[in-house]
Amino acid sequence: MNRKEVAIGIVQLSCTKEVNTNVQKTFELTQKAIRAGAKIVCLQELFYTQYFCQNIDPLHFEYAIELKHHIIEKFQILAQNTAATILLPIFEKRSVGIYHNTVIVISPSGTIQGLYRKMHIPDDPSFYEKYYFSPGDLGFPVFETPYAKIGVLICYDQWFPEAARLAALQGAEILFYPTAIGWWEKEPEEIYSSQLSAWKIMHQSHAIANNIFVVAVNRVGKEGELAFWGNSLVVSPFGEIIAQTSTTEEEFLVIMCDLSQIEYYRQQWPFFRDRRIEAYQDLVKRFGK
Amino acid sequence: MNRKEVAIGIVQLSCTKEVNTNVQKTFELTQKAIRAGAKIVCLQELFYTQYFCQNIDPLHFEYAIELKHHIIEKFQILAQNTAATILLPIFEKRSVGIYHNTVIVISPSGTIQGLYRKMHIPDDPSFYEKYYFSPGDLGFPVFETPYAKIGVLICYDQWFPEAARLAALQGAEILFYPTAIGWWEKEPEEIYSSQLSAWKIMHQSHAIANNIFVVAVNRVGKEGELAFWGNSLVVSPFGEIIAQTSTTEEEFLVIMCDLSQIEYYRQQWPFFRDRRIEAYQDLVKRFGK
Repeated sequence: MNRKEVAIGIVQLSCTKEVNTNVQKTFELTQKAIRAGAKIVCLQELFYTQYFCQNIDPLHFEYAIELKHHIIEKFQILAQNTAATILLPIFEKRSVGIYHNTVIVISPSGTIQGLYRKMHIPDDPSFYEKYYFSPGDLGFPVFETPYAKIGVLICYDQWFPEAARLAALQGAEILFYPTAIGWWEKEPEEIYSSQLSAWKIMHQSHAIANNIFVVAVNRVGKEGELAFWGNSLVVSPFGEIIAQTSTTEEEFLVIMCDLSQIEYYRQQWPFFRDRRIEAYQDLVKRFGK
Repeated sequence: MNRKEVAIGIVQLSCTKEVNTNVQKTFELTQKAIRAGAKIVCLQELFYTQYFCQNIDPLHFEYAIELKHHIIEKFQILAQNTAATILLPIFEKRSVGIYHNTVIVISPSGTIQGLYRKMHIPDDPSFYEKYYFSPGDLGFPVFETPYAKIGVLICYDQWFPEAARLAALQGAEILFYPTAIGWWEKEPEEIYSSQLSAWKIMHQSHAIANNIFVVAVNRVGKEGELAFWGNSLVVSPFGEIIAQTSTTEEEFLVIMCDLSQIEYYRQQWPFFRDRRIEAYQDLVKRFGK
């Protein structure tokens, strides 16, 4: 088994109300991660703003940006200068009246290689995303980078095994989940640990069921009624958490992932050989037969 | 939220080479579980034999039984006498030359309510199941019992999120996995804990992703090159392990499950509301688009 290693960078930050501050802080840590060897850097969901979806307010649409924008260009130049792939999660203004929760895949040449538009949109107390984001219409694309074939999903997609499976079936070796998840202060603290635990388990299960690396990048800090729980993590193709950030601190990590483990585990646990694809047709139903 | 409680019984045993001994031992513990209040009792995979699939040997087909057989009748009478539902995992002789790894759902009136025939068939060193079992052709059925609506899957199905999802979409409130899984002595002991951990995580993930109860019933004891790892468990609809047996001991457990938790968690985490069913069609592909 020949090792095929790639260094993954993740950047975990708190956000202020000042977009410029968030952009600058993120830019500096992204630079540091790349200097430390990272070839693919993933930033947190909606990285340049606070998590505005905890309120329904039409003024927040001002945070949406088009694909030609100086914030994006700043990271395109960084990618080009360093030959890194950067996953840039933005609030995308696709058109007047159509907005998405989007990750831009910036190639090592600085071009926009492609987009992932969040497919599963939550709508729960303090997470009113259906108000802001049209559901993605690009499916579950996979991106060939010089370093790895990657899938990109976003936050709430974490809870849907279908999304991870579809990316893996397209050949994803690493699945990235830029994220904004935290505890809601109106819920009792007793359930906090079970929420964090369930969230971790889902990432681990995607890694195991598909024998791929899974990376989640979450924010930290208190914003309004939400305390974002950090715990950004990297999971091995057999579900082991091989790196994890803190619950409260701003930090970046660079983690070496050996992609040859994927084939090793797929030979040990040949789930892809054994899927009963002729019996799965009801997965496209809402409920029942 | 009105509580709707059901007591689940699980029976974890080692198996000898003597079928009669295994049947009698299992029968007694099933009785005890029912006396302790269990309304639905789940036994371990292929409960009346050792795990013969670790060798390829045509003589082992002698263990296969038809649906009319004194072993089954013994448990039908027990079910009828106690008004319990019993999940009886057998090696089914369906016809000359067609054998299945099957669970019989015995109703509280003692009749055979239905069958689940294992859909995902493993075939790995010491687990040569493709030699013995035709893949199931009954899909992922769900059974309405007086106590709960239940799905039944078997062992290796544990690794496939599709199977759990399909049962949940048919309305399963509790998913049972009779199981025979253990450590293979030819593998290094260092990986034992990661295998057990991955196995638990998958059950937890099915419970979380579908907000249902998940029950796994595994055997214990050393048979040939395999050390079955027990750890039978019951998982809550948010992924918490609420009961677990030991790694090595024969035992039964009776666990109270409050089915009203399912609706509670589905309102808190409305994954079924948000599945992107129009984008899942490639799940029926082996690989690629």
